Amino acid sequence: MNNKIVLDYSQRLKDLNIEHSFVEHPSLTEVVDVMNFIGRPISESSATLVMKADDRYIAFIRRGDTELDIPKVKQMLGIGSLQIASPTEFTKLTGLLSGTAHFLTGLETLVDKKVLEKEYIYGGSGSLEITTKYKTEDLGKIPNSQIVDIANIKVKPIILTGDTPSGKLHIGHYVGTLENRVKLQHEYDTYILLANIHAYANDYRLAQKINENVYQVFLDNLAVGIDPNVSTIYLESGIPETLELYSYFLTMVTHARALRNPAIKDELKYKNLDPANVVMSEASVGFICYPILQAADILGFNANLVPVGEDQSPVIEQTREIARDFNKAYGDTFAIPEAMIGRVPRLVGTDGKKKMSKSGGNAILLSDDEETLKKKIQACYTDPNRIHATDTGKVEGNPVFEYHRAFNPNIEEVKDLEDRYRAGKVGDKEVKEKLFTALNTFLKPIRGKRKYYEDRPEVVKEILVEGTKRARKVVQKTLRKVKEKTGINKLIE
Amino acid sequence: MNNKIVLDYSQRLKDLNIEHSFVEHPSLTEVVDVMNFIGRPISESSATLVMKADDRYIAFIRRGDTELDIPKVKQMLGIGSLQIASPTEFTKLTGLLSGTAHFLTGLETLVDKKVLEKEYIYGGSGSLEITTKYKTEDLGKIPNSQIVDIANIKVKPIILTGDTPSGKLHIGHYVGTLENRVKLQHEYDTYILLANIHAYANDYRLAQKINENVYQVFLDNLAVGIDPNVSTIYLESGIPETLELYSYFLTMVTHARALRNPAIKDELKYKNLDPANVVMSEASVGFICYPILQAADILGFNANLVPVGEDQSPVIEQTREIARDFNKAYGDTFAIPEAMIGRVPRLVGTDGKKKMSKSGGNAILLSDDEETLKKKIQACYTDPNRIHATDTGKVEGNPVFEYHRAFNPNIEEVKDLEDRYRAGKVGDKEVKEKLFTALNTFLKPIRGKRKYYEDRPEVVKEILVEGTKRARKVVQKTLRKVKEKTGINKLIE
Repeated sequence: MNNKIVLDYSQRLKDLNIEHSFVEHPSLTEVVDVMNFIGRPISESSATLVMKADDRYIAFIRRGDTELDIPKVKQMLGIGSLQIASPTEFTKLTGLLSGTAHFLTGLETLVDKKVLEKEYIYGGSGSLEITTKYKTEDLGKIPNSQIVDIANIKVKPIILTGDTPSGKLHIGHYVGTLENRVKLQHEYDTYILLANIHAYANDYRLAQKINENVYQVFLDNLAVGIDPNVSTIYLESGIPETLELYSYFLTMVTHARALRNPAIKDELKYKNLDPANVVMSEASVGFICYPILQAADILGFNANLVPVGEDQSPVIEQTREIARDFNKAYGDTFAIPEAMIGRVPRLVGTDGKKKMSKSGGNAILLSDDEETLKKKIQACYTDPNRIHATDTGKVEGNPVFEYHRAFNPNIEEVKDLEDRYRAGKVGDKEVKEKLFTALNTFLKPIRGKRKYYEDRPEVVKEILVEGTKRARKVVQKTLRKVKEKTGINKLIE
Repeated sequence: MNNKIVLDYSQRLKDLNIEHSFVEHPSLTEVVDVMNFIGRPISESSATLVMKADDRYIAFIRRGDTELDIPKVKQMLGIGSLQIASPTEFTKLTGLLSGTAHFLTGLETLVDKKVLEKEYIYGGSGSLEITTKYKTEDLGKIPNSQIVDIANIKVKPIILTGDTPSGKLHIGHYVGTLENRVKLQHEYDTYILLANIHAYANDYRLAQKINENVYQVFLDNLAVGIDPNVSTIYLESGIPETLELYSYFLTMVTHARALRNPAIKDELKYKNLDPANVVMSEASVGFICYPILQAADILGFNANLVPVGEDQSPVIEQTREIARDFNKAYGDTFAIPEAMIGRVPRLVGTDGKKKMSKSGGNAILLSDDEETLKKKIQACYTDPNRIHATDTGKVEGNPVFEYHRAFNPNIEEVKDLEDRYRAGKVGDKEVKEKLFTALNTFLKPIRGKRKYYEDRPEVVKEILVEGTKRARKVVQKTLRKVKEKTGINKLIE
């Protein structure tokens, strides 16, 4: 590291006996991205805000997961106006670019006491490529500073999402839902469900197989970047309170309504059961009721947002109905959740069939190694009407191009390939080779992270045990509220 | 009391300084009946058995809820043969009639130590009409006696039964199931379910009404003679583990099978819903699945016997299937329960309609007062073809005679009335007056007990709270076993 501003800053910290070190990273403007890159929770980040208080300037240091309590600050300081300094004012006062603020602004400095609850805290350094790690114990040494109580933990909206463990996840899951949960995990309180009871509803006799699948799906979630320090991953059957809610919700939905859910008919189709005959279907009652169990999963957390694949949006609709019906009968209890569909709602299979699915044997898995990936791409279905490289071809609905558009970050390359394919000026070989490169680049870090966790079964187990405990507390609280509202246990309380 | 044998016995006890008192009762031969009459649990009864051990006679004193460990006794005494003395031998040895044995037989006496775990114990006195209450602390003073460890608690079979709380219970419930549960409560470990989740499945919005109904059904059970010291009465929603089991069982039953249950169609009819169209029915999914919830209620206790009304026997059949299927998939876990239909499987309504039901407005309630009872009997439907007392009449399916046969203990009177009715030699007035007398005699003690509990809401609440706690422990144990067998939570254990 040879950034002059940072070196100067380090010297000033040393002079003050403030223990610190530096972490380098790509140039990043968002705190969330920095913390994600270095793999620490947002609650260990700090931000220095310079604000104009009436006619003087004050620096506020608060934790990344908190927000200033403006009325409280105003009252404490006896001021009428409190506004963020403009970038120009900021640079004039600190000599730094906006977004790079560090702790030694030279201004009167107020440090929120929640910063000190952590042993270390990460904050600015004067550079977008370097983050300072401070020992919080030393922060009382900042000149002209005071420790005060002026920030509150931000109440984050809640995400509940997850997967029925039917096997390893594929790239269709990624663009359908995983990507969103990874991206949003710092802004939302994120709970990720490993839906093993849903899997039992497919075949209750396969306990052992279901456990294996749960484990693989769990690894896939960690591999794509779910940070267990930030998000909570949990096992559905580990929260009995969800099943209690489920039992109650079963009394709220008419049989007719349950059968009208298009998700049920869709799923029956994937199971090769006759969707026209839901009634006499050999699917289990648990399967027919799976949207109601999902409602319990979601409402147990009072989730606001549910990143799901497109096929699951009728399930969210049913969840919203249950929430509304309960609120109507017993007063405001549940938040009404929104579905969030991924950027590629339904990724085509390698065989050109409408939907990639593991059971269809047409999936590229997130865990596929290079060799497998290469073979699958080579065997990939393209435009069947195109026999020679000089024939004109269709790129829409053509898996190879669908994948290019979804996973190749080089937009110009994709456009060029599309143009040439349409004009009969490119062979499948080149299109597929470039797809391999793009997909392999995408999968490489995922494989790396997967390997990291595969090699550490103890760590992985601990994550699931702790996650389930944490998640359970939330659902317990919701269930208590439900029981209070209905008075269902009044006779024994 | 002026029974000479008992007075003599009392004198001998006094001489030995054994504290005791006497309780009088009707002549009863079964210990169970005595304990039921005096309102104490069977575990406070004792029995003196005279047995021939090789060539000598020994008296054994054990608690009513235990049985002698014969191999252990043989080994302890170093004997080869141990047999109950014949009534003749017994009388010759003790001077008492068989069935009236008391503690001072004059023989070598072995007292099982479990007798001493109670402060007081009830036992024979030499008379069938008098029971002795002993202070167990003094029992070491029995001549030629020893305290030994030779008896084990009898493992009783288990009953699970109960009611969906839709209102106060009627006399049809009594002969359909209540009677059996009262009669069997001493021989079986009896659990009585107040099925409030079943009631929610009828209408989830009626929480308050359901609580009121639960309370009434609860009082009815106590009123007919369920002894809370012996049987366990509990609230369904107070055992979340039942709902967990229910969720698992939902994954085991196909939708087709659930809809084939005739109990569902029957119940839809009572609800005035179209049983031909189960599928699009506005009944809740919880209602359609109620037999599966009932399976969870029953199997949670590993119940052996389920006293139910006739209409519920298909529900028990489904429970048996679930138990068998689970055992097949995961090894022996659940007992296969039997249904027990009451002596009058389906009592006719006062309007002559096939089934007495509260919603049908054709029921005589267990809690009806004399005035109401009289009015209902006066208005009771009889043979519509019989206009004058001199017309011949039908007694079969005629409510007045059905009730006579079910509740009038004077069989000769009933026969005489039937004969005269058939012959056109008795007026409805006489038949109904005699029915009133019989039913009123039957209901009087029930009303009395109801009043006793109605006046003591604190006692009643305590019974339900304690019962639910006790019942929950049993179901928790079953659920643990289920989870072990499937390994469903293996990943977080």
